[in-house]
Amino acid sequence: MSKNNNLQPIRFTDKLNLFSEHWSPKVIAEMNDYQFKLAKLEGEFVWHQHDDTDEVFVILEGELEIEFKEKTVHLESGQMLVVPRGVSHRPVARKECHILLIEPRGVVNTGEVESGLTATQDVWI
Amino acid sequence: MSKNNNLQPIRFTDKLNLFSEHWSPKVIAEMNDYQFKLAKLEGEFVWHQHDDTDEVFVILEGELEIEFKEKTVHLESGQMLVVPRGVSHRPVARKECHILLIEPRGVVNTGEVESGLTATQDVWI
Repeated sequence: MSKNNNLQPIRFTDKLNLFSEHWSPKVIAEMNDYQFKLAKLEGEFVWHQHDDTDEVFVILEGELEIEFKEKTVHLESGQMLVVPRGVSHRPVARKECHILLIEPRGVVNTGEVESGLTATQDVWI
Repeated sequence: MSKNNNLQPIRFTDKLNLFSEHWSPKVIAEMNDYQFKLAKLEGEFVWHQHDDTDEVFVILEGELEIEFKEKTVHLESGQMLVVPRGVSHRPVARKECHILLIEPRGVVNTGEVESGLTATQDVWI
């Protein structure tokens, strides 16, 4: 666990090697009041939304589908997507996928939904 | 030019193919009041600082050195660095390097320094 090391570069693959659980974002850096989190995803998440903030997904490895009410967006390594605030969505990873999430400090991964998938906040690696 | 397309994935390499100039960040997405910008760097930038905000560099391709008063940080593809607010720094790319910058809307690339390298703000691709 380390909060913004003193001008130390952060290598995504090194940090990804430090955990294996799915749907459990780990904080690797903060910029102002925003957090950069790594997560490993596999399977289907829950439908949810974040009423107060947009959310950015960057795909580092693998593929991810994000289902919306009107369409499904397919993402793969080297792509990003902005999920606007208030828009209900459900991430689905057919195989394990590694992502970088960017969002304000304090955002709950399941949004307004209470779920067994709700992750502990502010876990640094 | 397109502001936050309606749930369209953004592929970094597609966007990078749309410009060639150096030290001229292009906006590809917004999350709340933050912007995601791509830039191609080559050569030495100017010493500068951002007094009001941290700044995140993500290296997409190539290598980048960021010089600080006390040390030089070497970054390569797959790494990120948070440059804290108020900390003077100078990016140097020995060869062309492609990066993703994340910072609040309105940040000037040369910070408080007036320079021929000061880029036009809010240019979307």
